[in-house]
Amino acid sequence: MTSLPADSALNESTAASSAALAQTPRTRPVRLGDRGSHDVAQIHAIIDEAPICHVGFVDDAIKGHGTPSPMVIPTVPWRVGDELMIHGASSSRMIRRLQEGGEACITLSLIDGWVLARSAFHHSVNYRSVMLFGRPRLVSEEAEKRAALDALMEKIEPGRSAKVRAPNVQELKATSVLAFPIAEASAKRRSGPPADDPEDMAHPVWAGVVPLRLTAGEPEQDLAQTAG
Amino acid sequence: MTSLPADSALNESTAASSAALAQTPRTRPVRLGDRGSHDVAQIHAIIDEAPICHVGFVDDAIKGHGTPSPMVIPTVPWRVGDELMIHGASSSRMIRRLQEGGEACITLSLIDGWVLARSAFHHSVNYRSVMLFGRPRLVSEEAEKRAALDALMEKIEPGRSAKVRAPNVQELKATSVLAFPIAEASAKRRSGPPADDPEDMAHPVWAGVVPLRLTAGEPEQDLAQTAG
Repeated sequence: MTSLPADSALNESTAASSAALAQTPRTRPVRLGDRGSHDVAQIHAIIDEAPICHVGFVDDAIKGHGTPSPMVIPTVPWRVGDELMIHGASSSRMIRRLQEGGEACITLSLIDGWVLARSAFHHSVNYRSVMLFGRPRLVSEEAEKRAALDALMEKIEPGRSAKVRAPNVQELKATSVLAFPIAEASAKRRSGPPADDPEDMAHPVWAGVVPLRLTAGEPEQDLAQTAG
Repeated sequence: MTSLPADSALNESTAASSAALAQTPRTRPVRLGDRGSHDVAQIHAIIDEAPICHVGFVDDAIKGHGTPSPMVIPTVPWRVGDELMIHGASSSRMIRRLQEGGEACITLSLIDGWVLARSAFHHSVNYRSVMLFGRPRLVSEEAEKRAALDALMEKIEPGRSAKVRAPNVQELKATSVLAFPIAEASAKRRSGPPADDPEDMAHPVWAGVVPLRLTAGEPEQDLAQTAG
């Protein structure tokens, strides 16, 4: 992608591939630390590629449910400079809770393959993921909100924001855009072949990686256009 | 609801595709209720297809972090009868918190396509998702644990559980399997073309669906085998 704001964020994210976020108690790896990273360029790249993220938060106001409950909602993430954006109906549960100051854990996972090992134990998944913590800023100023929604269009299809019918005032009002700083975040990845134990290497079963990739099929044009 | 008794549940899930879970305050749709469902067969089918789920929980014991925090961890889900299973290193944060009685929200999302509308506002994603709430049961009895891990192998590649080197006692101990009742859960889906407003139908931009599908590529055999 993508459309980025004119200023410093662009320089920062393209220039310094060695820039790293500070580690925090929440982003410090508990185990398998070698799979983890705080590299900004790597985190940005995963956000830019991911068509979906899962937003976790605690909902303490579910009608008819007495206690706070974890909630995980899938939605489309995109990036503008150093912020991860999500959007939704202003009336939705996720938007309401987060707008009220709720804290989120947003996880993005790209699956790259099944790792088939000789031992059941060493089966795994090749993946790239990002985990981000924070509280959002509501993007309320109209020009910034329009630019953010344009950037979402550009992620879906470069050049599309100029071609679609832009949001009208009602639609803008019905949609909330939330911006999370890409500050307390880390990336994780596994790649490569299975890591079987030496004593299993001769075990007679196929071992290797079955690559997986989210692939676009033949576009299906709306019948209302093709019939016309 | 209500975890179903083990015996009747099995029959129910294989027999009656019209069986539905009871709606709860957490699984009642807040908006777009027409996209939601509590149909057991539909929920099972999404769990069976999903290579990954996102497990949300609240971690109130992060070393060096003062307050409870939402956490969202990606992992591979699979199903045994009327339970959704996950597994992980017994030492991992997720397993430890959930084993201690933590409540989870597990969300599985299958992306079926980008929905490109004429108006920015009506862009969408075609998807099938499941959201499940509950507390897990630790699968500790050895035979059941082995059978559960075999079922995971079978999900990755049918027939594989008989071919791999089975877990030894140490590996079994290092791995925890958690089983969640598929009881408080709902499915959601969007499919079909964009739903533009009538006044936008003549807007001159391509509209339709770009199908997306997680596709397996050519298997990459471990070089240690091909060289042999």
